[in-house]
Amino acid sequence: MKIGFIGLGIMGRPIAGHIVDGGHQMAIYSRSSPPSDLLEKGAVVCASSREVAERADVIIVMVPDTPDVEAVLFSRGGVADGLTDGKTVIDMSSISPIATKEFAARIAEKGCDYLDAPVSGGEVGAKAATLSIMVGGTQETFDRVKPLFDLVGKNITLVGSVGDGQTAKVANQIIVAVTIEAVGEALLFASKAGADPARVRAALMGGFASSRILEVHGERMIKRSFDPGFKVELHQKDLNLALEGARQLRLALPNTATCQQLFSVCAAHGGSLRDHSAMVNALEIMADHEIASAT
Amino acid sequence: MKIGFIGLGIMGRPIAGHIVDGGHQMAIYSRSSPPSDLLEKGAVVCASSREVAERADVIIVMVPDTPDVEAVLFSRGGVADGLTDGKTVIDMSSISPIATKEFAARIAEKGCDYLDAPVSGGEVGAKAATLSIMVGGTQETFDRVKPLFDLVGKNITLVGSVGDGQTAKVANQIIVAVTIEAVGEALLFASKAGADPARVRAALMGGFASSRILEVHGERMIKRSFDPGFKVELHQKDLNLALEGARQLRLALPNTATCQQLFSVCAAHGGSLRDHSAMVNALEIMADHEIASAT
Repeated sequence: MKIGFIGLGIMGRPIAGHIVDGGHQMAIYSRSSPPSDLLEKGAVVCASSREVAERADVIIVMVPDTPDVEAVLFSRGGVADGLTDGKTVIDMSSISPIATKEFAARIAEKGCDYLDAPVSGGEVGAKAATLSIMVGGTQETFDRVKPLFDLVGKNITLVGSVGDGQTAKVANQIIVAVTIEAVGEALLFASKAGADPARVRAALMGGFASSRILEVHGERMIKRSFDPGFKVELHQKDLNLALEGARQLRLALPNTATCQQLFSVCAAHGGSLRDHSAMVNALEIMADHEIASAT
Repeated sequence: MKIGFIGLGIMGRPIAGHIVDGGHQMAIYSRSSPPSDLLEKGAVVCASSREVAERADVIIVMVPDTPDVEAVLFSRGGVADGLTDGKTVIDMSSISPIATKEFAARIAEKGCDYLDAPVSGGEVGAKAATLSIMVGGTQETFDRVKPLFDLVGKNITLVGSVGDGQTAKVANQIIVAVTIEAVGEALLFASKAGADPARVRAALMGGFASSRILEVHGERMIKRSFDPGFKVELHQKDLNLALEGARQLRLALPNTATCQQLFSVCAAHGGSLRDHSAMVNALEIMADHEIASAT
């Protein structure tokens, strides 16, 4: 397939690399200077997103936030200006599910298909081609581009129609944030009550409290290893999608809201670039007590 | 060993049964009429907790809450009145870790050992002898009575010194409650945004959002099966231990506090006897929207 790729940052660059390695021609557009590894593999640099859309059959977008996707798709010289009947736009960014439905409708007016395909797994997953991909769109479009997803991901799910991939991603980020907070409250309670949080964590694994978060992020809290991983400031962006979406949907998310506030406490104390497990630092600051392990 | 058992309710009765089946002599005291199955197996009925303590080497207590344990141990005619040097008291109730340390100190004055050994796994686990047991006390005492725990549990951990078993149990209940809430917020967001919560749950399993709660209680929320399980009113008792303990320890547990409020919303709408996964009902009531699955 002729692939277009827009957004060659930390996530986009390794993803684009895997797709080129899979034998596909690629046209790219990048605001900064294009990555030399992609050029060496034969990727063609375009002067605009519009030119990418003109040259490619499938245009993949991987940018930070909702306004960035809107700009790439619909600003002058954007993707929409270069589309012709039968092309496919895949947005792998993590953005608003509600805006996604609107973007897809506008792309459909051009006679083109749209998939939202946000990922989880971070930079590590992107490099290792082990991303989880949550897809929204039609079964037919999904089946057609599935070979591309197979080049970059492991757990690839068509969740539902357009927007549902983004909805699943938001749901994922809600659960991850609130579960980190749950583990933080529990281990801090244990520590402050005089127990060894490492032994408490061990006693809880395997029971109803068990989760990937208790396993991975609980260990981070105990070992005080807050190098990212997934940064606080990125999770704040995702919780903003959850809370802004909830407001539009008339839905209260009380613990997601509290987690966002705790991330802000964390950020106030210089923690924006720490791993999101550093949310526990906010609880620790409030309690004037740090989790300490005897082991 | 000569075992004394006080508190033959939903949990105590099957636990006592397994211990008698293990070949131990048993003296029991029960406020209500003693269970006939225990009598048939040779358990001796005593007139008071004091008499149980006089007859037994190891006295096990399994009652609802902190004041109940205090009454059984220290009221007139209680366990403490019947203790002599070298006996062991095991409290399998789920009560305050802070009060536990005080009780243990008073029992130590009698020349006796104390273990706190709260369990998780509920009535099902008690009947099947598959309880998780979180123990606080000395290694020596733990090793001596471990054969008794083996008769009723599977995952048996000495967490630390006296009180640390209760601390681990509180930590467990914090994580379970807040994770239920996390899954509730996420699936309700998904449903209200128009996605199929069953497919969203499936997409999230195996990733960072994965947990026993997403697996078991997420399914309950989608299938609307809120028969207990573990009752809302019991989890409210446990969160009270967490919040009251946190107040004494000068520690803020913001999401545990919110979960307790959501349980109260649930209870206000007749949900006290539902499974604790019914916490999602509080979010649904607030959003005027029920999780509905297409599948």
